[in-house]
Amino acid sequence: MILRSSPFSPFGRKVKIAAAVLGLTDRIEVVVADTNDPSEPLRIQNPLGKIPTLVLADGSALYDSRVIVEYLDHVAGGGRIIPHGEARFPVLRMQALADGIMDASILRMYEIRFRPEEIRSADWVAYQTDKVKRGFAALEKAPPAFDRKLPDIGAIALACALGYQDLRFDGWWRADHKNLVAWLDDFAAAVPSWDKTKPV
Amino acid sequence: MILRSSPFSPFGRKVKIAAAVLGLTDRIEVVVADTNDPSEPLRIQNPLGKIPTLVLADGSALYDSRVIVEYLDHVAGGGRIIPHGEARFPVLRMQALADGIMDASILRMYEIRFRPEEIRSADWVAYQTDKVKRGFAALEKAPPAFDRKLPDIGAIALACALGYQDLRFDGWWRADHKNLVAWLDDFAAAVPSWDKTKPV
Repeated sequence: MILRSSPFSPFGRKVKIAAAVLGLTDRIEVVVADTNDPSEPLRIQNPLGKIPTLVLADGSALYDSRVIVEYLDHVAGGGRIIPHGEARFPVLRMQALADGIMDASILRMYEIRFRPEEIRSADWVAYQTDKVKRGFAALEKAPPAFDRKLPDIGAIALACALGYQDLRFDGWWRADHKNLVAWLDDFAAAVPSWDKTKPV
Repeated sequence: MILRSSPFSPFGRKVKIAAAVLGLTDRIEVVVADTNDPSEPLRIQNPLGKIPTLVLADGSALYDSRVIVEYLDHVAGGGRIIPHGEARFPVLRMQALADGIMDASILRMYEIRFRPEEIRSADWVAYQTDKVKRGFAALEKAPPAFDRKLPDIGAIALACALGYQDLRFDGWWRADHKNLVAWLDDFAAAVPSWDKTKPV
């Protein structure tokens, strides 16, 4: 399998950590994709032109990150990082919250990357930033428990959402979210692929 | 169950049609939510402040639309509009493509709603619009087959992505996508909840 991604994508990092905890890293070759390059085969593999996209042996591709992690879980036997039954839904909700935080954070980044300063909107940035702040405020009260040997996709996604704040927004959350800081330290100690996937 | 949504949300429409084809409409009360109102309980139910959000009998909430439709499928017995096994992944990919088209379309809308004309970015709008166009170009070549009695979530999502173009962008796609026009006509004829969920 070929994973089209970028070292800086928090959604790509989620897939890489999921693959690692499922023991699938050796079966995946990572090939960097430039989402801004119109000639990128990525735009054929995935018409949305988004990363991560997973290209399978038969040339077909799976996206987005949620579909990929579910596929990897299936390849690894099923029900491993995404539980079956009623336990599935709190885990999927945690992933959705972390994914939503990453989406809002990326929109904040794009405001800078895609627009000269005179056409940036402070209201739009505040609207997105408030989603991130409300998300972390809720999570600070109750960071999710996780299995240190086999963290579920909710915990993996949350770690990636926090790591992305460190990468792009100077770790602003660390001063006011002591429980989440301790949570991420614990995750980092338990999951070796966390450090190995750190963007440099 | 209470569904927080808006009549205009394509993701909310996806959930409503999923509920209808699964026979769950009578178990769901729809309560409109205003995502721009800071005092909305929605922002407590879902820290991201996004619709659709499904509030369960115990007061807990599920989001986003993908998690909700999977939960509804589970409540209806499982494997009904989201197949189990290998057949699951093409359906989830189709949903991801349609969701991505809706996301890009909503970002186009937000460019108008959130910004006075002088701070809009033609490059950003083109970047999002190109995702929609590439998506429909790929789908026009091979519109997805679906079960007329029980359409899967990929087909439901695609219908909602097309309907949103009609609602917000004057049906621009109809002239150049004859196969998709025929596909949506067929979907509309097969799925009574399509017309019932049309935004007015």
